[in-house]
Amino acid sequence: MKFLAKLKNITQSNNSLLCLGLDPDLSKIPEHLQSRDDRVAIFNREIVDATHDLVCAYKIQVAFYSAFGKESELAQTINYIRESYPEVPILLDAKRNDIGNTATFYAKEAFERYKVDAVTVNPYMGFDSLQPFLEYKDNGVMILCRTSNPGARDLQDLKVDGKPLYLYVAEKVVGEWNIYGNALPIIGATYPKEIAEIRAIAGDTTFLVPGIGAQGGDIEATVRSGIDSQGTGLMINSSRAILYAGRNKDYATAARKAAEQTREQINLFRSVSVNN
Amino acid sequence: MKFLAKLKNITQSNNSLLCLGLDPDLSKIPEHLQSRDDRVAIFNREIVDATHDLVCAYKIQVAFYSAFGKESELAQTINYIRESYPEVPILLDAKRNDIGNTATFYAKEAFERYKVDAVTVNPYMGFDSLQPFLEYKDNGVMILCRTSNPGARDLQDLKVDGKPLYLYVAEKVVGEWNIYGNALPIIGATYPKEIAEIRAIAGDTTFLVPGIGAQGGDIEATVRSGIDSQGTGLMINSSRAILYAGRNKDYATAARKAAEQTREQINLFRSVSVNN
Repeated sequence: MKFLAKLKNITQSNNSLLCLGLDPDLSKIPEHLQSRDDRVAIFNREIVDATHDLVCAYKIQVAFYSAFGKESELAQTINYIRESYPEVPILLDAKRNDIGNTATFYAKEAFERYKVDAVTVNPYMGFDSLQPFLEYKDNGVMILCRTSNPGARDLQDLKVDGKPLYLYVAEKVVGEWNIYGNALPIIGATYPKEIAEIRAIAGDTTFLVPGIGAQGGDIEATVRSGIDSQGTGLMINSSRAILYAGRNKDYATAARKAAEQTREQINLFRSVSVNN
Repeated sequence: MKFLAKLKNITQSNNSLLCLGLDPDLSKIPEHLQSRDDRVAIFNREIVDATHDLVCAYKIQVAFYSAFGKESELAQTINYIRESYPEVPILLDAKRNDIGNTATFYAKEAFERYKVDAVTVNPYMGFDSLQPFLEYKDNGVMILCRTSNPGARDLQDLKVDGKPLYLYVAEKVVGEWNIYGNALPIIGATYPKEIAEIRAIAGDTTFLVPGIGAQGGDIEATVRSGIDSQGTGLMINSSRAILYAGRNKDYATAARKAAEQTREQINLFRSVSVNN
């Protein structure tokens, strides 16, 4: 099924805009799993089993796997989600990019090797570097506009044509570059004013919004700034605050509880925002 | 040994500014190797054996490996170069980046997992996303300023503070962001005017310059625009034009010949430019 259709279905059936980031920091995985070679895959599987009916997507951060040569556990995790919960879209958070010829191989990595539904990419190299990803028309291509870190200011806030670079990029992402309808902006939850600015030009396009939870983004401000006219249009990502809600044997139960609370908090402001 | 010292030594001893890109496109590897599982590693080994005394570095493009799950052949290639020709620096062309916490894991991937001398990174997310790489003070961090593709124009040419974004980024790379002296700009050979502009602000900093050969960058213009006051300061990358100079059993000999010619062409303009 096409990514956007899958996302729409799960958003309704799970009544959720919560995207859960599977970023398994080895140092934070519970003690009782530490001695196992496949601890990352087990940790992920238990988290997924405990949360699949509460989320609108899983976002998997490649760096946490590739730093340790754990591509096989990355693939195992993706395969497990795809086979057990095929209704939940999987985003590969790779922030890849390169010039056309090479970008083709990064697009293959995401969509053919790992067979994920969507991938995150970096726009600095321009449209021809994004096109090989966009050509996978059934998949989502989530393009960095305004990131959630303090250094986002360094380049993304610079004024071009009288507007900040992140807004210029966002206009391209929802306009000229969106040749197949599968380009989506990424905007950090730590900048709600910027989310609102981009919503104003983006219609009902879905945004990936990382940065709530450990990074400090505010749920109310995020939802109020970013919600679309249908009460959807956001995939709000939390990783560490949910994954490591519990650090002992009950970690999956604790993660479920944290995911449930986060989904409810989002939904609270979601209905308020649409009704107002 | 520190990356910059290693680079200086090899540039002198091999009398070369040629960086050879090991981008093994499976469809272009000679017929007689195609049936072997380890064809990429063999191809690379023979290319390296045939060229190690002609280059100033090898640049390895991760996407060509990760698209096919060939991380082990990537590691084999890196290990082979490091063990057989420890004097030749290895650059991982990864164009990675992410916010601080995650960038730390990408830096680990490059410098601890693969143990390369330098890595390429993308500046869109700002200084705090580069810092985890820069903290590996003995290693090189090569930062995209002006890329060699046509789409480079889309964002990198936008005017900020009255100057193009690529120049703004280059000023940061050789100035404020260069806290440990290991930050180096990347500028495509297809834009010699831009190379000259950046040289004018960069002193004798070394640039990575991809884009000669198959991408059409002109060697004379590249060298004249980019050479520093010592007749060095450039790592000029060619990949396909050398790797696939021969497509039969003699491919390594053909690659050696192409590498030799490219090195000589670079050196021709290099001496002319320094003498003038």
